[in-house]
Amino acid sequence: MNTIGHIFRLTAFGESHGTAIGGVIDGCPSQLKLDFDGIDSELRRRKSAQTATASQRKESDHIEWLSGLLDGITLGTPIAFMVRNEDAKSADYEALKEVYRPSHADFTYEQKYGIRDWRGGGRASARTTLPIVVAGAVAKQLLKEQNIQILAEVTSMGDAEQAQKEGDTVGGIVECRIIGAPAGLGEPMFGKFSAELAHAMFSLPAVKGFEIGDGFALAQMKGSEANDTFINKIDAGLRDARRETSPESRVNIMTLTNHSGGIQGGITNGNEVVFRLAFKPIPSLMRPQQTVNRAGETCEMTIEGRHDVCALPRAVVLVEAMAAMVTVDMMLMQKTR
Amino acid sequence: MNTIGHIFRLTAFGESHGTAIGGVIDGCPSQLKLDFDGIDSELRRRKSAQTATASQRKESDHIEWLSGLLDGITLGTPIAFMVRNEDAKSADYEALKEVYRPSHADFTYEQKYGIRDWRGGGRASARTTLPIVVAGAVAKQLLKEQNIQILAEVTSMGDAEQAQKEGDTVGGIVECRIIGAPAGLGEPMFGKFSAELAHAMFSLPAVKGFEIGDGFALAQMKGSEANDTFINKIDAGLRDARRETSPESRVNIMTLTNHSGGIQGGITNGNEVVFRLAFKPIPSLMRPQQTVNRAGETCEMTIEGRHDVCALPRAVVLVEAMAAMVTVDMMLMQKTR
Amino acid sequence: MNTIGHIFRLTAFGESHGTAIGGVIDGCPSQLKLDFDGIDSELRRRKSAQTATASQRKESDHIEWLSGLLDGITLGTPIAFMVRNEDAKSADYEALKEVYRPSHADFTYEQKYGIRDWRGGGRASARTTLPIVVAGAVAKQLLKEQNIQILAEVTSMGDAEQAQKEGDTVGGIVECRIIGAPAGLGEPMFGKFSAELAHAMFSLPAVKGFEIGDGFALAQMKGSEANDTFINKIDAGLRDARRETSPESRVNIMTLTNHSGGIQGGITNGNEVVFRLAFKPIPSLMRPQQTVNRAGETCEMTIEGRHDVCALPRAVVLVEAMAAMVTVDMMLMQKTR
Amino acid sequence: MNTIGHIFRLTAFGESHGTAIGGVIDGCPSQLKLDFDGIDSELRRRKSAQTATASQRKESDHIEWLSGLLDGITLGTPIAFMVRNEDAKSADYEALKEVYRPSHADFTYEQKYGIRDWRGGGRASARTTLPIVVAGAVAKQLLKEQNIQILAEVTSMGDAEQAQKEGDTVGGIVECRIIGAPAGLGEPMFGKFSAELAHAMFSLPAVKGFEIGDGFALAQMKGSEANDTFINKIDAGLRDARRETSPESRVNIMTLTNHSGGIQGGITNGNEVVFRLAFKPIPSLMRPQQTVNRAGETCEMTIEGRHDVCALPRAVVLVEAMAAMVTVDMMLMQKTR
Repeated sequence: MNTIGHIFRLTAFGESHGTAIGGVIDGCPSQLKLDFDGIDSELRRRKSAQTATASQRKESDHIEWLSGLLDGITLGTPIAFMVRNEDAKSADYEALKEVYRPSHADFTYEQKYGIRDWRGGGRASARTTLPIVVAGAVAKQLLKEQNIQILAEVTSMGDAEQAQKEGDTVGGIVECRIIGAPAGLGEPMFGKFSAELAHAMFSLPAVKGFEIGDGFALAQMKGSEANDTFINKIDAGLRDARRETSPESRVNIMTLTNHSGGIQGGITNGNEVVFRLAFKPIPSLMRPQQTVNRAGETCEMTIEGRHDVCALPRAVVLVEAMAAMVTVDMMLMQKTR
Repeated sequence: MNTIGHIFRLTAFGESHGTAIGGVIDGCPSQLKLDFDGIDSELRRRKSAQTATASQRKESDHIEWLSGLLDGITLGTPIAFMVRNEDAKSADYEALKEVYRPSHADFTYEQKYGIRDWRGGGRASARTTLPIVVAGAVAKQLLKEQNIQILAEVTSMGDAEQAQKEGDTVGGIVECRIIGAPAGLGEPMFGKFSAELAHAMFSLPAVKGFEIGDGFALAQMKGSEANDTFINKIDAGLRDARRETSPESRVNIMTLTNHSGGIQGGITNGNEVVFRLAFKPIPSLMRPQQTVNRAGETCEMTIEGRHDVCALPRAVVLVEAMAAMVTVDMMLMQKTR
Repeated sequence: MNTIGHIFRLTAFGESHGTAIGGVIDGCPSQLKLDFDGIDSELRRRKSAQTATASQRKESDHIEWLSGLLDGITLGTPIAFMVRNEDAKSADYEALKEVYRPSHADFTYEQKYGIRDWRGGGRASARTTLPIVVAGAVAKQLLKEQNIQILAEVTSMGDAEQAQKEGDTVGGIVECRIIGAPAGLGEPMFGKFSAELAHAMFSLPAVKGFEIGDGFALAQMKGSEANDTFINKIDAGLRDARRETSPESRVNIMTLTNHSGGIQGGITNGNEVVFRLAFKPIPSLMRPQQTVNRAGETCEMTIEGRHDVCALPRAVVLVEAMAAMVTVDMMLMQKTR
Repeated sequence: MNTIGHIFRLTAFGESHGTAIGGVIDGCPSQLKLDFDGIDSELRRRKSAQTATASQRKESDHIEWLSGLLDGITLGTPIAFMVRNEDAKSADYEALKEVYRPSHADFTYEQKYGIRDWRGGGRASARTTLPIVVAGAVAKQLLKEQNIQILAEVTSMGDAEQAQKEGDTVGGIVECRIIGAPAGLGEPMFGKFSAELAHAMFSLPAVKGFEIGDGFALAQMKGSEANDTFINKIDAGLRDARRETSPESRVNIMTLTNHSGGIQGGITNGNEVVFRLAFKPIPSLMRPQQTVNRAGETCEMTIEGRHDVCALPRAVVLVEAMAAMVTVDMMLMQKTR
């Protein structure tokens, strides 16, 4: 269950303070010349996001490519990569070894496995999302060849500067658009594009809500307001009929509005895929909190070290990465239909 | 991609006006005495939901059990079942053969497969969710033995009676709670309980939003408001220490609040799992709509026959069914950890 | 685990004396016009194989197609089908309810599930292979479009007529060739064409051995004897260079010998895929055998009714069916590479 | 398709002359204290096997453990590991860049991917089996706790010393036994213990035949010779009834003979699982061979460097490793039944 995808698959590994974190990308088509700078740049986007509101852990995040490449070109075989964990100050966490941090995964991991890696959040640390960024960057390069773009942005966020003063944290909303994806992606009945996206997005830490198109607002609309009318692109002046080889071609059909967020019956309709995610505030506060310890005793706890006030800026690149992976996976799957 | 689940798996089949719809449940533990009345009763919940706001198609919905049972007891082998499609008036749909109904899956299916079953919505019809109700009912019986309950309800819905008069339709919100699920369910990193739920729920028709716990509201909260404090049940008077064999037992730990909706780090914490779904209004209006036909020509279209004004009452049992399947699946998976 | 395949998938269900046996084919490409006569003819091959050496159970084997088709054309959605069990004389098996037939699956199923369907062998009956023949027949039609042929034959068999007189049974060898499969099928490292074939073939009842190319004989050869030399088809006069658009094309390369059975490094090389299967004699003898009963007491047992003396003639169509499914599955998978 | 297993899963990566080879073990139960010496010892078994008949590549084979462990104890999270490739003399292979070595995977990989790593056999190199040994060693430690043993041995091999003089190579037979596995392992219909074993074994390089129990010899037997009679262990004096808590216990049942190789109906019966593998001679000869190059021209080729004369001694530990992984996987799966 540390693998995502059907054809384009990422198997991720790593704990925050273990030796390394990384992943294995299986099913990436061969003969793709990897743009390593592009990948590093995605990692920098994740890192630079930290400057304003984030923790000070110095991660050089140098990717070692372990397999699957010859002269930087994909061989079709598994692409393994890793980033060593540096500057991991496990001692900072020693005090937390016996307590369950509120709204963290300490308690649940221990209930699940009977053991947990208390150093820096272990497998549940936000650091473990790094392989997602790398695999997502590879997926983006495949999409670029198809003129498909993924763009996410923070559309709402709490007052981070104020929260920081109060030792508090904030959450927010990320909106993402997949632009240029062809119609026909996604699989009925249990592999809908929407379901695959939802699954991918809820695999990101702190995600507590997900909506497509007008989402929750649709619950308040009438059908006559929510329906997306189909139009003919040429009739609507969105395409030049004289240049079309086949004016009756169905690809001239699109929806005028996009309440559905580009997905109907679980399958893309050619319009932009639009979705939004709710991220809860990160639970590591810079002030004392009440909790219980492993013996079940009530106690007070303070999280040492410096931590992010808000995960949102980092989340943008994660959301894009996941969206890219799902899109590539569904495109490869569609080749078999 | 018509299969859901890892251990407890449902493979569903069927089109609205094909011969039959049904499914194959694989991985159901052996020696469960099926309560057929209980299963039929779930189907009736789905049907009775129709009376007020729904279509008049007469479905006797008699389940034929094809395999996997001996004297009503599960053998551990695949449990196949089907319901024949009756009263399917394909002629009603003849007029729709060449047009794409707005916000339906007509266009997207045709883009995907180059062919579509135009009779009654084909594979995208709401009728195809029937196997989910049946498999969910079996899952509920497994959960009952563990004292786990699944309860969904409509918490918000448009004005159906008014919409009906106007030939319009409405959507709404369903909330669901999983009560009594043990801590430790769900798999990091790509099999989180939340992600599995999200995937299952977005496999239901018309779902456009999903949130866990306080969901989208969490995006507006501060960490100090959103965090769930752990407490000791005995100290809090929620359990009688004298009856406990081991007062230090970690299962005496719970969260005081439940902003997280029972899931932390993707894994259940023993509190109620709470989530909400946004259903869009169903797109079949009882009044003329503009659309395009397969030739790309703009045209007006009226959907004949009688259709639901609102899918919400039906959706309740679907949501419960999916939640039950996910819970059973994650419980079986946890046995291997 | 009642599902086989990655893209072209069969989920099979049914017990020998249950209501029906059948399957769900998922992932079959859309717009294939099914040749129902061809499928029935495959079932007849299975049945006519019975006349000489086989049991008298009258199976009309009428296939009901439940879903996935419109006017006989595949929709891309799951194709479900079933055959009702008729003439099932469960009473014949009543005497066997409490005993474990030697070399049958009675004991192992009961150990696995704590329960077993004692009627006619239940899920372990040879009858449950019928869905494989149906799915294989569909796969063959897909292969036919690509000019790929699957041909199996019995190459060795015990003396069935003599065995019948003695109330005994015989086994034998089936050889199968896949002719015309392109080079490049099969996936390293755990989806080799050979491994997928082996898995499929060992899913058939009574298979106890499997070898590819020269198989076990290769263990006795030297490398210089076992290696398959590559040649150029045009140089070797196997192709007319004047008709070739590109004489240097690599598809002009083939192996002169075929000790490897068409598979090198787990991937097809364009030569015929050749493999052989060892089937053990069927364990139902027409004479008394010693065994133990469920209470662990030694007892004598006689199997009533009439049973096959040899499964080999039936096995031929099963082997072809499995080979066809694996080939289609690997061809669809290759489309994603 | 570089992942094997359902619950206990290995994702393997690496090319012979890439940066590293390794794997990710997912689904290993938590709280297992890894015996690293035991794992290294398995790698040494693989290496020492090389001395007599094998190549001189100096591989220090130092395992770096990247994740999934805390103080050497499994966390339940993915266990990633790698071994760097050293002493890789890619220049030795430069001459082979444009030719297809007979009975190697050069041609088939290029047909599949349109590109291949020509350095040392790339992904098809025997070196890439190293992760299997590591994962198998972990699996063995899990089996040891259950008193289950896996023992393989070479039972037949060509004359290696003579072949070496002639620049030739030899193959042979490996037999393996799984001792102490409980009855009830393996899943009908497409996850039979035999089918899972066959799939795993054919994932090893050079395997061309596989048989269980008496295997191909069963094809020549009569049913009366091939059937395994059940007996009561106590009656047979194989167990002391006075020590049994429940003399009627079904676990007192076993088969007197073991023609079936411990598997009936695809499920283990409690007897030893016995199987044999045919390995073809390795195709790298120390003498000139005829072949074609990428342009399709016939040419002569000599493989430089030193290569194994026989893969059999190495294969023993590989076979055990695969058998261990399959057994653990099926045991974990059985926990869900």
